[in-house]
Amino acid sequence: MKKVITISREFGSGGHDIGMEVAKRLNIPFYDQEIVDKAVAESGFTKEFIEEHGEYSTLSSVLLGTSAPFDSYYYAEDPQDKIFKIQRRIIKKFAQEGPCVIVGRCSNYILEQADIDSFDIFIKADIEKRAENVADRVELKGDELIKFLQRRDHKRRVYYRFYTRRKWGDYHDYNMMLDSGMIGKDKCVDMIISAIGE
Amino acid sequence: MKKVITISREFGSGGHDIGMEVAKRLNIPFYDQEIVDKAVAESGFTKEFIEEHGEYSTLSSVLLGTSAPFDSYYYAEDPQDKIFKIQRRIIKKFAQEGPCVIVGRCSNYILEQADIDSFDIFIKADIEKRAENVADRVELKGDELIKFLQRRDHKRRVYYRFYTRRKWGDYHDYNMMLDSGMIGKDKCVDMIISAIGE
Repeated sequence: MKKVITISREFGSGGHDIGMEVAKRLNIPFYDQEIVDKAVAESGFTKEFIEEHGEYSTLSSVLLGTSAPFDSYYYAEDPQDKIFKIQRRIIKKFAQEGPCVIVGRCSNYILEQADIDSFDIFIKADIEKRAENVADRVELKGDELIKFLQRRDHKRRVYYRFYTRRKWGDYHDYNMMLDSGMIGKDKCVDMIISAIGE
Repeated sequence: MKKVITISREFGSGGHDIGMEVAKRLNIPFYDQEIVDKAVAESGFTKEFIEEHGEYSTLSSVLLGTSAPFDSYYYAEDPQDKIFKIQRRIIKKFAQEGPCVIVGRCSNYILEQADIDSFDIFIKADIEKRAENVADRVELKGDELIKFLQRRDHKRRVYYRFYTRRKWGDYHDYNMMLDSGMIGKDKCVDMIISAIGE
């Protein structure tokens, strides 16, 4: 039973690679960079701007408690809101086209709100393991690298919080959570495929 | 690589059965009722009292923000604290004896604090699915049954919060979370065994 699979992930946990491999094995489309590419085309913002503002909050978490709903007039012109709405439309369209794997960007929440069934996965790993994983693509080392990962996590958490009013990683929002550092990426792929019944 | 496995679970999610089957397949001890039996022997409280107070908070969650640490003199004589400490000692002892499966009672946290390695699992399921699962052992139906499950969850959550100062089900505290309703109990068993490398 193929279906739409969403993958949320801590930065550096390998969620992207796991999702790509799952899509390949199931022979279904994989959407991560494609969401950015389409959002660039629709919004006029640059790729870099969308990558940063389409998943990482630019808000201070301090504001969250009191801020108006994101689509109220206070925020109507906020570029981040504009990107969220464009990405939401793209994600819904991809999911409506048939089984696929969609990475990040509150896709689990977006599909739930749109009444589109999905199997929702959260991939995590210890921060030391994630530091290892990203060492060859991030030019930071030691404590600096750890702090970088913590900031990335924080911004994703705040982004998720802001647009869903839920807690990122809360088990209610997922059908499966896997620690890729403990379990290994290959086994995570096998488990996801087994879980959805292939 | 056999190891200590802890299973936390929402009430009615089948975590007990999954854990028992994992233990059977790995040929290692399974501890759930045994924890209660030993605590009865050590405490002098009845089985029923320990079952209720050894996993379900008797505190109002309202108090949690301001309450003193559980082992301060304010709570030194609280039966729930006494049971927690007895169960903690039992759980540590079981884990020190070798690979096993331990169900609930903050065992993931207790072992972490005791520097004992464990593979920590959280089993959940939608409340409708859990209502189905427990229908033949709980004498309630419909909304009453749903409310009963919600109260059980709440009391476990508050218990975990009180003794760990963490959020029950938070992904940081587990290596794997499985939705037994979506995935099916048998597959959950297979995945856990695969994850720990058997």
